[in-house]
Amino acid sequence: MFANTPEPPYFAVIFTSRQTADIDSRKYAAVAQHMLELAQQQPGFLGVESAREDVGITVSYWSSREAIRAWGQQAEHLVAQKLGREKFYEHFILRIAEVQEARFFE
Amino acid sequence: MFANTPEPPYFAVIFTSRQTADIDSRKYAAVAQHMLELAQQQPGFLGVESAREDVGITVSYWSSREAIRAWGQQAEHLVAQKLGREKFYEHFILRIAEVQEARFFE
Repeated sequence: MFANTPEPPYFAVIFTSRQTADIDSRKYAAVAQHMLELAQQQPGFLGVESAREDVGITVSYWSSREAIRAWGQQAEHLVAQKLGREKFYEHFILRIAEVQEARFFE
Repeated sequence: MFANTPEPPYFAVIFTSRQTADIDSRKYAAVAQHMLELAQQQPGFLGVESAREDVGITVSYWSSREAIRAWGQQAEHLVAQKLGREKFYEHFILRIAEVQEARFFE
């Protein structure tokens, strides 16, 4: 639920999206789950946090910009990105950011 | 729903939280709404995106680290932060990040 990230600096991909009205939710869930499993196997993957209401926000954490670039070019992920643009998402913003500071409360 | 942010660089506060089981949802909603209104009046505020399921993720965008620091010290916001730690949140992580790149799709 929370990403157990190391001390900063590390990197975040903040992906904010709105799904299409006619989305195939079952297919979307299957693709999203498979992408999560693949991401977890990628070098430099640190964790992910996700929630969806009107918009979905998924923040994935990575050790470097290079690790993010490599994940963006992963073959199955490229297919999923195409599906995303063509079928799943009406609108999205993807932001790449360097996490410089983190505070935990429990 | 989407933050209409300018060209990078700018800054993001990624706030991931889990609410307490016995949260007063009405009070929480009122405080959250008031904080949003105050944040929008702060110098350097660029926008906010938010969703909650098992965890809540709120990403607010700011023009500078200084703008984030000033908002963190705003008097009413300090009171809300105390309420957050004492009443609203069981667990949270607050990360401050520099957005270096952004891509839009519509």
